[in-house]
Amino acid sequence: MIASTNAVEWLTEARSVFEPALRDAVDRLDPYLRRVASYHLGWCEPDGTSTAGAGGKALRPGLVLLVGRALGADPAVVVPGAAAVELVHNFTLIHDDVIDRDRERRHRPTVWAVWDDTAAILVGDAMLSLAHEVLAETGGPHGDPAARALARATREVIRGQALDVAFERRDDVTLTEVLAMEADKTGALLAVSASIGAILAGAPASTIEALHTFGAELGLAFQIVDDLLGIWGSTAVTGKPVFADLAAAKKTVLVAWSIENGGDAGADLATWFASRRARSEAAPRELEHAAHLIEKAGGREWATAAADTHVANALAALDGLDLDAAAHGTLVDLAHFVTERKL
Amino acid sequence: MIASTNAVEWLTEARSVFEPALRDAVDRLDPYLRRVASYHLGWCEPDGTSTAGAGGKALRPGLVLLVGRALGADPAVVVPGAAAVELVHNFTLIHDDVIDRDRERRHRPTVWAVWDDTAAILVGDAMLSLAHEVLAETGGPHGDPAARALARATREVIRGQALDVAFERRDDVTLTEVLAMEADKTGALLAVSASIGAILAGAPASTIEALHTFGAELGLAFQIVDDLLGIWGSTAVTGKPVFADLAAAKKTVLVAWSIENGGDAGADLATWFASRRARSEAAPRELEHAAHLIEKAGGREWATAAADTHVANALAALDGLDLDAAAHGTLVDLAHFVTERKL
Repeated sequence: MIASTNAVEWLTEARSVFEPALRDAVDRLDPYLRRVASYHLGWCEPDGTSTAGAGGKALRPGLVLLVGRALGADPAVVVPGAAAVELVHNFTLIHDDVIDRDRERRHRPTVWAVWDDTAAILVGDAMLSLAHEVLAETGGPHGDPAARALARATREVIRGQALDVAFERRDDVTLTEVLAMEADKTGALLAVSASIGAILAGAPASTIEALHTFGAELGLAFQIVDDLLGIWGSTAVTGKPVFADLAAAKKTVLVAWSIENGGDAGADLATWFASRRARSEAAPRELEHAAHLIEKAGGREWATAAADTHVANALAALDGLDLDAAAHGTLVDLAHFVTERKL
Repeated sequence: MIASTNAVEWLTEARSVFEPALRDAVDRLDPYLRRVASYHLGWCEPDGTSTAGAGGKALRPGLVLLVGRALGADPAVVVPGAAAVELVHNFTLIHDDVIDRDRERRHRPTVWAVWDDTAAILVGDAMLSLAHEVLAETGGPHGDPAARALARATREVIRGQALDVAFERRDDVTLTEVLAMEADKTGALLAVSASIGAILAGAPASTIEALHTFGAELGLAFQIVDDLLGIWGSTAVTGKPVFADLAAAKKTVLVAWSIENGGDAGADLATWFASRRARSEAAPRELEHAAHLIEKAGGREWATAAADTHVANALAALDGLDLDAAAHGTLVDLAHFVTERKL
């Protein structure tokens, strides 16, 4: 038995490794946008006062560093990749909050809610640009392939968000469509988070590909768990209102599966979604009823099993790779951690 | 005497060289965002029908290609730079139109006005990301430095836009502040448009630096002419309503200079701006009066001379560079062309 760091310990440890690079990037912004970015990242209050809080869980940069360790790479080689994926992730969150009109994230008001749309649009733009600035400073032959992979993933994330918004206006979205949308929206960035360390370390194409699959499968598991949390997660854990996804009439994988495979309960759910769309508000009791229909349709059970299957697929992708055994153990723990967030 | 292509001919010719790369980049987007981007670029109508129109004047990519020719570089080497600066330029236009709530550009409704904020935010994001994707595909040792230069310029453009918006809420903006803001907002992208071809062609640092100065000075001239057009330009030329900048209470260089140096007329102008800020609308006669105050303050005359000075500075930066003589002639014509847009 090899003693592996567990996932939560790793993510905490990883933060101290990549955060200086992230802060260095954000420090290049003008004072106004620097403060907006620092607020979003959990480093300060809107007035600039420092906070003790650490922001999000930093799953993506932690994954970049973990893969670097698994491949025996110098952390300095993969740190720019960690900072870049975290910048891209946060840029998408800030813009998505504007688009979705979400007023709260991580138990705090979102950027547009504190400042305005202008601040949110500009700081998101700046963070996407900084991600590429950081990657272009790596030097050596691997900066370009890393930037290419990140840009492709960003394109997929944006496509996913565009589809997500479009699906909210449609009644006939299929499970296949929602799965593809979620692979774009969440899977793409986790896939590049798992592979960009390998790209920067100059690993062979087959290793990069296997790690990409690991991240993509992990992303699907992550999104399905997120969908479950979006309905049954407590506000204390998610930082979002209860039934948030139902209130927003979001066609998650959970909903699409339940409608297509849930018999009478699925049909009732489809009817509810169609009527829901015509109005801007829904009563709490109505949302509770819709959640009950999903459960009755078997959606909750299916989603829980599907998340486990994607984690298994993710772990299978690592088979045959020559990885540091302790880091491999942490990757396995990280994959399980993703599906064990408290419901 | 060497026969140089004139600037207008060059910009037309250049379009046929860089546009395939630009279309190839836009074609990577999903069908929805591809159509939005194609509409903005003047390639189609909102419903997807092709247009004969050519979009904007493509000054920036034309400049990239012209510098490439001046340095004797293979056009294929600098084309990715041309596509990248045009993508970044258009990303900033699309987001700025959302921020400034401008409903019209190039005689057509803006993206957010045709679709919505979501489409505009996402397509802008996608175009910024595509710019880096294209640059990362150049291969060889010059992709990283080019991406770094583009990212730095993008950061400056975003800072400039943030300042521009902030200045609209302030009564005490100084000429120095406005000049710095406009150097960021317009100068930075023209500076990188003039230097990125040299970076991609592997030119010495001193050449890159000189071309950067050429572009930055040209940018200042360009912006001052734009400020003049924003007040006295005809709608037919600018595609914007008359007195657009005054209606938006924009603190342009022209306005800041007039307030600081315009004696009694300048003081009256300051008073008008302060009162203007308290209301959302201004009558056409009021705007006409404000334009008259700027003229009386000597602002129009000063700006016309300042634009000429910046063009002269730009041309002086080229002295001593080993440039192809015909291409140099076109650069000179391009610099003059910038200040000769019809008022």
